[in-house]
Amino acid sequence: MTQATTRIERATSPWLARYREVRARSVALTASLSAEDCALQSMPDASPAKWHLAHTTWFFETFVVAPHDPQYRTYDPAFRVLFNSYYNGIGDQHPRAERGLVSRPSHDEVLAYRAHVDDAMRARCDAAQDDAALASLIELGLNHEEQHQELIVTDMLHLFSRNPARPALCGGDDHRRESVPLQWIGCPAGIVHIGHAGEAFAFDNEGPRHRVWLEPFELASRPVSNAEFIAFIDDGGYRRPELWLSLGWDAVKARGWTAPLYWNFDGRWRAFGPHGMTDVDPHAPVRHISLFEADAYARWADARLPTEFEWEVLAGRSLDVGTRSGLGPHAHAAAASVAGLLGPRPVTGARADWRIGDVWEWTSSSYAPYPGFRPSPGAIGEYNGKFMCNQYVLRGASAATAPSHARVTYRNFFPADTRWQFCGVRLARDAR
Amino acid sequence: MTQATTRIERATSPWLARYREVRARSVALTASLSAEDCALQSMPDASPAKWHLAHTTWFFETFVVAPHDPQYRTYDPAFRVLFNSYYNGIGDQHPRAERGLVSRPSHDEVLAYRAHVDDAMRARCDAAQDDAALASLIELGLNHEEQHQELIVTDMLHLFSRNPARPALCGGDDHRRESVPLQWIGCPAGIVHIGHAGEAFAFDNEGPRHRVWLEPFELASRPVSNAEFIAFIDDGGYRRPELWLSLGWDAVKARGWTAPLYWNFDGRWRAFGPHGMTDVDPHAPVRHISLFEADAYARWADARLPTEFEWEVLAGRSLDVGTRSGLGPHAHAAAASVAGLLGPRPVTGARADWRIGDVWEWTSSSYAPYPGFRPSPGAIGEYNGKFMCNQYVLRGASAATAPSHARVTYRNFFPADTRWQFCGVRLARDAR
Amino acid sequence: MTQATTRIERATSPWLARYREVRARSVALTASLSAEDCALQSMPDASPAKWHLAHTTWFFETFVVAPHDPQYRTYDPAFRVLFNSYYNGIGDQHPRAERGLVSRPSHDEVLAYRAHVDDAMRARCDAAQDDAALASLIELGLNHEEQHQELIVTDMLHLFSRNPARPALCGGDDHRRESVPLQWIGCPAGIVHIGHAGEAFAFDNEGPRHRVWLEPFELASRPVSNAEFIAFIDDGGYRRPELWLSLGWDAVKARGWTAPLYWNFDGRWRAFGPHGMTDVDPHAPVRHISLFEADAYARWADARLPTEFEWEVLAGRSLDVGTRSGLGPHAHAAAASVAGLLGPRPVTGARADWRIGDVWEWTSSSYAPYPGFRPSPGAIGEYNGKFMCNQYVLRGASAATAPSHARVTYRNFFPADTRWQFCGVRLARDAR
Amino acid sequence: MTQATTRIERATSPWLARYREVRARSVALTASLSAEDCALQSMPDASPAKWHLAHTTWFFETFVVAPHDPQYRTYDPAFRVLFNSYYNGIGDQHPRAERGLVSRPSHDEVLAYRAHVDDAMRARCDAAQDDAALASLIELGLNHEEQHQELIVTDMLHLFSRNPARPALCGGDDHRRESVPLQWIGCPAGIVHIGHAGEAFAFDNEGPRHRVWLEPFELASRPVSNAEFIAFIDDGGYRRPELWLSLGWDAVKARGWTAPLYWNFDGRWRAFGPHGMTDVDPHAPVRHISLFEADAYARWADARLPTEFEWEVLAGRSLDVGTRSGLGPHAHAAAASVAGLLGPRPVTGARADWRIGDVWEWTSSSYAPYPGFRPSPGAIGEYNGKFMCNQYVLRGASAATAPSHARVTYRNFFPADTRWQFCGVRLARDAR
Repeated sequence: MTQATTRIERATSPWLARYREVRARSVALTASLSAEDCALQSMPDASPAKWHLAHTTWFFETFVVAPHDPQYRTYDPAFRVLFNSYYNGIGDQHPRAERGLVSRPSHDEVLAYRAHVDDAMRARCDAAQDDAALASLIELGLNHEEQHQELIVTDMLHLFSRNPARPALCGGDDHRRESVPLQWIGCPAGIVHIGHAGEAFAFDNEGPRHRVWLEPFELASRPVSNAEFIAFIDDGGYRRPELWLSLGWDAVKARGWTAPLYWNFDGRWRAFGPHGMTDVDPHAPVRHISLFEADAYARWADARLPTEFEWEVLAGRSLDVGTRSGLGPHAHAAAASVAGLLGPRPVTGARADWRIGDVWEWTSSSYAPYPGFRPSPGAIGEYNGKFMCNQYVLRGASAATAPSHARVTYRNFFPADTRWQFCGVRLARDAR
Repeated sequence: MTQATTRIERATSPWLARYREVRARSVALTASLSAEDCALQSMPDASPAKWHLAHTTWFFETFVVAPHDPQYRTYDPAFRVLFNSYYNGIGDQHPRAERGLVSRPSHDEVLAYRAHVDDAMRARCDAAQDDAALASLIELGLNHEEQHQELIVTDMLHLFSRNPARPALCGGDDHRRESVPLQWIGCPAGIVHIGHAGEAFAFDNEGPRHRVWLEPFELASRPVSNAEFIAFIDDGGYRRPELWLSLGWDAVKARGWTAPLYWNFDGRWRAFGPHGMTDVDPHAPVRHISLFEADAYARWADARLPTEFEWEVLAGRSLDVGTRSGLGPHAHAAAASVAGLLGPRPVTGARADWRIGDVWEWTSSSYAPYPGFRPSPGAIGEYNGKFMCNQYVLRGASAATAPSHARVTYRNFFPADTRWQFCGVRLARDAR
Repeated sequence: MTQATTRIERATSPWLARYREVRARSVALTASLSAEDCALQSMPDASPAKWHLAHTTWFFETFVVAPHDPQYRTYDPAFRVLFNSYYNGIGDQHPRAERGLVSRPSHDEVLAYRAHVDDAMRARCDAAQDDAALASLIELGLNHEEQHQELIVTDMLHLFSRNPARPALCGGDDHRRESVPLQWIGCPAGIVHIGHAGEAFAFDNEGPRHRVWLEPFELASRPVSNAEFIAFIDDGGYRRPELWLSLGWDAVKARGWTAPLYWNFDGRWRAFGPHGMTDVDPHAPVRHISLFEADAYARWADARLPTEFEWEVLAGRSLDVGTRSGLGPHAHAAAASVAGLLGPRPVTGARADWRIGDVWEWTSSSYAPYPGFRPSPGAIGEYNGKFMCNQYVLRGASAATAPSHARVTYRNFFPADTRWQFCGVRLARDAR
Repeated sequence: MTQATTRIERATSPWLARYREVRARSVALTASLSAEDCALQSMPDASPAKWHLAHTTWFFETFVVAPHDPQYRTYDPAFRVLFNSYYNGIGDQHPRAERGLVSRPSHDEVLAYRAHVDDAMRARCDAAQDDAALASLIELGLNHEEQHQELIVTDMLHLFSRNPARPALCGGDDHRRESVPLQWIGCPAGIVHIGHAGEAFAFDNEGPRHRVWLEPFELASRPVSNAEFIAFIDDGGYRRPELWLSLGWDAVKARGWTAPLYWNFDGRWRAFGPHGMTDVDPHAPVRHISLFEADAYARWADARLPTEFEWEVLAGRSLDVGTRSGLGPHAHAAAASVAGLLGPRPVTGARADWRIGDVWEWTSSSYAPYPGFRPSPGAIGEYNGKFMCNQYVLRGASAATAPSHARVTYRNFFPADTRWQFCGVRLARDAR
């Protein structure tokens, strides 16, 4: 009888269904990995998959369960520090660079921790139906977890890239792309409205919606392809300082960059990716490039990077109404594994020639608050605001991004030298 | 007879007069320093005064004399590398961090180098009267040298701060300021025009003039004072992570910041400055703070940093016509020494309460190209454009800035952790 | 029938029995650890336990099986690089600091690799009965593996020390020691013979046996105890530069040393060890100290470190004949787990008061070749010789040392700042 | 009258004459350098010449004048910290790496400081005639200053090597050597006496005199020549790991060593030295090599480095009585400039074929205390003893060494990777 009741309760909460779906996907993404795979950390910027599984759980425990459930029994008080990423408002944090020194709790124990919090979240999901603030927190936690799902993929990819055996992260083959001609799509000067509006979820950094004046410009209809980027390399792109920002040229020299991250030339260009080492697909968007490389390519191509405002305006006009807040019918079910996640991603828009969703696209916009932006009070306010310095905005979405995140107002951000993310570039130019 | 002719020629060229005036001021700034003082380098960001004297000369030799005078005899071919700061288009550069390893050429030889190039510049100054492009290069070279005059002061100050004896850079006393109440000056929403227009000289990064939409805002009538900043310190400002950008908090912890650079507490706050160690003047604008400290102070004060556009608009309206491109009747003659340079700087404006000119003021604006910006072709195009990454714009002028630079469109820029410059902060807030 | 034959063959080879015993002990030491535990690396000096299991196998495969068995099928060619520690004569090596980035091969696969090589070693063990050179290589491989068994313990201990939960490496309690009075044992001046002689196994660095002149000296009958070392701390030992070597004092300041590694003071001294955090046992020998701390303690105690020659001579005289090449009846069976390994270690000697075997004892002797020393030709010659620079000799044995290694001629060696090994100190002084 | 009296007093003190001679030589060595030259520091290991001039003065002021002259007026209390090298017993020290940030006191002021202390030393030199302890301190101070004279040469050489113009430290040409055949000089096994004995000055680290047993060995009659070292380079010496100590091979790879310091190949080998860039003299001893290179060369040559005991014994037998404590009639007067200092150095010995005095010769002996060594009490005891870790002994003398230091018991010492000193190598081998 209890079970039947429970089943009915579950049925009544759409929050619970969504919660379970998102949570299950995180575990599914690591299903083909061993506990060893999930425990290692390849650099301070990347975290072990086990840490991601635990931290996202910590987020629900800390911000949703503990403050709202006086009966809640903390799973392990040590986790408060161990799985706190950067919330000074909560307290101390285990050093980021040492996340890979923690073999215990074990992978299994982290899964048990997930189950413990999931159990406690059932009541919260029910209560969220009548509590908008709580619902908002749960929604934030789920979007947060979806962000970490992409990081699980990129961080594991980086770890495996440091293994001389270059193991594949998932089975199957990378799908090959067709050649798509580049078109220029124009936009006249004028005041535009930028930022999120409406009831649907968005991160705080996507608002407030506000006005921006834009000079006339044009954007490419698709990101730069590998074939195009190889032409840049072949033209001495990595050896010509006049093409680079000063910091970019410093990076080229100091780190010996001669191609995108994970690329290797042995007669032909090969690249390491989720499917292991494969030939570089000439028609696929170039990825694993820093803002410096994106900017140098653009200068070489007599173009420039778009601003995030230019990108948002034109993406908003090029995608149809149904996909403005999501990049198409990408099935959630398919994402139940890394291979599923990375499968072909059909994008339909008002303009058939507008391509998006394979790579995050660097913009020239420094990550900064929109006019009137105020972070939430308390520790949750540390989510986005305190990082608005020395980072650049990326727009779009990559093949590893949760589909629901691929809305036109979404602001991803990373330092200019970041390469381990799925970062590419779309050209812009002043209208002529 | 030759002398008489020369004297007449000199009299005919206003360029020569200006050239001599600016060049003489550089030497005057180092007149009270020894050759040893001028040879040392205290950190990679700062250069020896001797290097500044040589590099500014190299600039005229490389960009003005050599390309326009086929008869010109290069003073020393090795200087092409030794005194090239960062122009890849010219060729290799002596490493920036090793400028302090060069005892030879000696100080006297650098002065001889200056005389040699000054001699060759006479004919160029004459020719500039009929050659707008040449005149423009000379103008750039002079403004360039005036920028380095400020760096001579800030870099020497940093060097002397590392000497346990804390020697004074110049004699005399720092003038004390009167208390000035802070007022808020508002600006309504609307489209504004930003950037340099007209015939007067401006750096390339000040244009093109273009439109920007601004939401309504208010700016403080004067920069934050030392007394106000001490209140922030006393309120635990350097110990409260919630006030800081994430990178700022990292800097506070890693570098042990507890006060502005050069400050020391021994019962009362003392600070090292051009006049040696002195009591902190409560009414003077706080200086030697990073953007991180400026931003934390603003958050603590329930305000924010201005954008560079907000600053430019309100400064343009608050200064009268005569001072929009210069901050008042600051006499050039007075700047013939460091002490003269740093004397009281009367600023008159359309609004008597608008204060400016003591410190550079951090803005929240990342240093980025204006729409349509294109650097000049060739090596001279490296002057500004390639640094538009991970730096933030400062507006205004400091007591060590050449008066003619203190125009409302001038964009100074430094990385967010910069403290050895004369950097302060003016508060902004959204209009209510 | 084949089985029966095999069984008989096995029975005939003492090499096989010994091989199996040693190899089994390595696996037993990690039996209570998870695959995650064994995959992590806490610093470049320490290696993952999985790497130790694989590298010791690689040693047999590379130096014993492959050169002697033309039929041998290499398990995985990539292992030639991956598990090569430092043998340039064999070829490239996976970078030492990146041993912890290798989640694959998995722990299970490394065990399979062990089984594969163990299988091939059966025939080599048989052949060794009639091939002294082969037998010598096998003996070297077994002693090599026993060295790595100690490293498994010390490296795991270091890893666990970096885990905030401070997990115990093994169950049970550390045994408590009785107070033992310190006695001084003297030795007159004269020529002594140093180094290994005879048929029993020794590493190449233990010979050639040669003469050394010693001035008269005295050695303490036992290592310095924790209680004694606490007296040094309490007397300001870590705050008095006059007690320290210059490099030692630099280390104290730069690394903030205030006690031995793993020690923590919370009202009383606690230390992390194989059994987790426990009270410091006052009567146990102090351990986890660098040579710098050993030397500072000795200076504080108006004594000095022994030379390795003084140690060898007096240890040889103090231990009876039966234990000169082994420190007593410590049962191999007991070492089948970490807890067993670390149990009480009774030492009987000619002198009942001579204590040894708990900690490695720093000597003042720089690790250098004995007169006439020549490394073996080929890659195996890299075993010891090339490390004879900037390291210091330790004598004795720790609780984690294979009993057979605890002979009086054994030369352990580490850099002077090493603390994660079980290092302690015995005092010496000039005879009076 | 006062003058006459003074002249008589001076005449009565041999200490004063020697004091003045040594002190004058330090100033003479920098006579051809500018204040700028003397103020710069090229690396933490090297100090500005001005610092050497001041520190040697500080030594007399601190250890001789101040403790013995109650009337003495300290020249500047800040110098107590500023020019303290490493004596913790005296107090704090200005950071070694920041000696080049001190433009004030100026060069002239340092000379005034020297004059002030020289003045005060007059009475101490007189008093020393009847005070053996005082005389001993003065003698130490003079030997200390002579050590710094060599450092002035090596440190200036390093500074000038970092100047792209590669200025010569002194005029004139390097004298060319004649080819000298290498002979092997043998020594039978036995007990030898090592260390200083007698009344003449020696540093504390040269004693106590004690016995050492030596196995039979042979030493080369002269150091390795440049021609011989070039053969090592040409045979791939810098590319063959089997020739190198492990730390040495690390250094070769990390620092890109392909030849001795200051060498450059442009069709033929050129080297930077006191006379500027010159062709490498094939017959001159190779210099500016680390212990690692010395050791690799020896291994390549099927030989080894001598121990410091072997060197001392054979040098003592090969030099005649008159030069056992000094390497010949090298005129002090000639050393009144860098060029004079570095002139040809005739060495006569009991064996005409024994060559010494051009380069310090690396030995395989770690720098360690002799049996019974006890540093002096107090700060002066920090002179040598606390550096006896991770350094190796060099024997002999270089062309820049004070002649009186070139005695057979003198122990120079540096870390194994040191190259900016005048370091070379003499081969040894076991007797056959």
